[in-house]
Amino acid sequence: MENIRIDQERLWASLMEMARIGASAKGGVCRLALTDLDRQARELFIRWCREAGCAVTIDRFGNIFARRPGRDDALPVVMTGSHLDSQPTGGKFDGAYGVLAGLEVIRTLNDVGYETAAPIEVVVWTNEEGSRFSPPMAGSGVFAGHFDLAYAENQTDEAGETQGGALAKIGFAGDAPVGGRPIGAYFEAHIEQGPVLESEGKLIGVVTGAQGQRWYRVCVTGFDAHAGTTPMPRRKDALLGAARMVAALNEIALATPPDTCATVGALHSHPNSRNVIPGRAEFTVDLRHPDDAVLARLDREVRARFTAIAEELGLAVAMTQDYYAEPVPFAPACTAAVRAAAEAAGYSHRDIISGAGHDAVNIARIAPAGMIFIPCTDGISHNEVEDARPDHAAAGCNVLLAAMTRLADRA
Amino acid sequence: MENIRIDQERLWASLMEMARIGASAKGGVCRLALTDLDRQARELFIRWCREAGCAVTIDRFGNIFARRPGRDDALPVVMTGSHLDSQPTGGKFDGAYGVLAGLEVIRTLNDVGYETAAPIEVVVWTNEEGSRFSPPMAGSGVFAGHFDLAYAENQTDEAGETQGGALAKIGFAGDAPVGGRPIGAYFEAHIEQGPVLESEGKLIGVVTGAQGQRWYRVCVTGFDAHAGTTPMPRRKDALLGAARMVAALNEIALATPPDTCATVGALHSHPNSRNVIPGRAEFTVDLRHPDDAVLARLDREVRARFTAIAEELGLAVAMTQDYYAEPVPFAPACTAAVRAAAEAAGYSHRDIISGAGHDAVNIARIAPAGMIFIPCTDGISHNEVEDARPDHAAAGCNVLLAAMTRLADRA
Repeated sequence: MENIRIDQERLWASLMEMARIGASAKGGVCRLALTDLDRQARELFIRWCREAGCAVTIDRFGNIFARRPGRDDALPVVMTGSHLDSQPTGGKFDGAYGVLAGLEVIRTLNDVGYETAAPIEVVVWTNEEGSRFSPPMAGSGVFAGHFDLAYAENQTDEAGETQGGALAKIGFAGDAPVGGRPIGAYFEAHIEQGPVLESEGKLIGVVTGAQGQRWYRVCVTGFDAHAGTTPMPRRKDALLGAARMVAALNEIALATPPDTCATVGALHSHPNSRNVIPGRAEFTVDLRHPDDAVLARLDREVRARFTAIAEELGLAVAMTQDYYAEPVPFAPACTAAVRAAAEAAGYSHRDIISGAGHDAVNIARIAPAGMIFIPCTDGISHNEVEDARPDHAAAGCNVLLAAMTRLADRA
Repeated sequence: MENIRIDQERLWASLMEMARIGASAKGGVCRLALTDLDRQARELFIRWCREAGCAVTIDRFGNIFARRPGRDDALPVVMTGSHLDSQPTGGKFDGAYGVLAGLEVIRTLNDVGYETAAPIEVVVWTNEEGSRFSPPMAGSGVFAGHFDLAYAENQTDEAGETQGGALAKIGFAGDAPVGGRPIGAYFEAHIEQGPVLESEGKLIGVVTGAQGQRWYRVCVTGFDAHAGTTPMPRRKDALLGAARMVAALNEIALATPPDTCATVGALHSHPNSRNVIPGRAEFTVDLRHPDDAVLARLDREVRARFTAIAEELGLAVAMTQDYYAEPVPFAPACTAAVRAAAEAAGYSHRDIISGAGHDAVNIARIAPAGMIFIPCTDGISHNEVEDARPDHAAAGCNVLLAAMTRLADRA
């Protein structure tokens, strides 16, 4: 198997054809979950899978499974896939690459007439992005038992339509039960969505796990006062407090390299008038680290620093954690298969932590899972200018082919 | 004259009666410029002035002058006054106190039958607040030749009505020309709108001038990136840059005590999403100092620090000054008269700089001007809970009486 290579041009042509569905003027894709464009993308995928000889199953939450039988079809499946929905200003590769790389693996196995021991499936997970219906990674989350099916079905978009209703409307509320069957191994190929591989000139990211995340809301309270009549020492400037906290958070993250990520993305000042000292400032904190113990230590450091800054300035601060995702290490068997495949193909590679959430993180809760990253241009994703190179896409797909066949034949 | 005292209860009763016009449920006043409520307040003032024997003149921009003749009515007038319009959530004292203190001076002079050498006038300036029609201090600004009459008349409110049209609608586009006559001295009594007098237990603020002001818009540009996948050293976080600049501005102001005021009131982060590193942040800077040379030095310091922070973080920064008001020193003759009056009455006092803008700052461009501050509760103004004490209001009015008569008799 290690001498077989996927068809780079066919993979790229499929990516470009898929990208026409919801194509934006700026070269990106807007294909929100469970819209008519999502339906068109799903139907194109199903047509291609049937043309490749796969049996297609759709579960009640709209997850699509295209199956290529194994020699012993009773063995646990080796699965790959990702999603076809996009961000409102998304790119051509986020999600679609993982799905179409999986299809290309099946096409390649068909080309050479290779029969794996275990069956192989390519899955399209419903609503990974979470842009239209919250939460994200919904299809894989319901499949893995992380969310209840009814909970996910009852989520509504801004127009008040339920996710279950939207599924039925596009004809993708299928018959199969969601989850409840064994998976031998799960792989997901994806663009890195970050700058590390590109900047280090590495072709393949062997993803060893996903960061733990803590999200917070911070509210700093001072006292509104006149910007011209209130002497500096008498002020209780909530925005000044927030600004010092933003700087302190950055210092804390830099002091625990290289894997700490800490971000203040949103900040609001009140009353936000140019000649009023702000009496209140609110901001978010997004704190990530792959080691849960380090994440907990960072949490304590941030709280202590924020409290000290507030006390120094005569302010009150309230910090509320409103989201927590534990770090997810990927299965050593999957990671090793990816690394070995990259080595065998002579691709440069490095171990990497996934900073973003992916369906693979949900599947890792119930099965051995792993991911393969390829570089994306300038590390840009969730943006219409998101881009990747055909040879990089092919390299990741070759690694996926080798890793999947290795584990599918292991049994 | 120095033994005469104004009638504290009469002054307070007038303040409370005036505060009924546009009274808000929270104890404040909403009496926007040139609304029907403003008309009611103007008409009450005119009725009181006529009852006090004054001749009332209204100029084309609606400024109202109530005149008490002097022994030599050809002498330049000694004038006092302020405004009757309020902020949308304003208080009972901002503006109304200066107008009704002037009326109380005339009533007191009438009570004792005292005839000043020069005539005395109490003025109500049109649209001091600038809440409905921009710019603020419009009536005194047109009077002092700082704004053209036509420019001020053509300003529109949010509904598209012109200031000139609103003046005509409430019947206050008068016949008298605006400005163009000599003023011997101008005084304005006002609540401090800051915390200094109250906190130091001082009764009278001898206002020696108004701060110079520079207002800026600052735009920091970095690069939007994923909060989970972009390592800390690779970020171009515009909000981090803005936060460090907010903190640096504060340090600069604290390093030049006691009169520097520096405030970031408004700040916007883009795209302001919790898991996106902000690629752009915009904020305002309000920088004030009573010495123009110091203000210019502070400007250079701020620009240098902001540039250094941007360079350190790989960001671009653009700082645009969009408003400048030069420092205005009040006339030594007026300041001395206020100080002497406070001394003679045995009132505790201190020199103070006005941090806020006032009509007196415009009049200082064309005549000797001064101001008298009294404490306001907790330094709060532009707020419905704005409050002052009857004995403090009376003290400021006694100082006004003594200062005005001193200068009116000087001739």
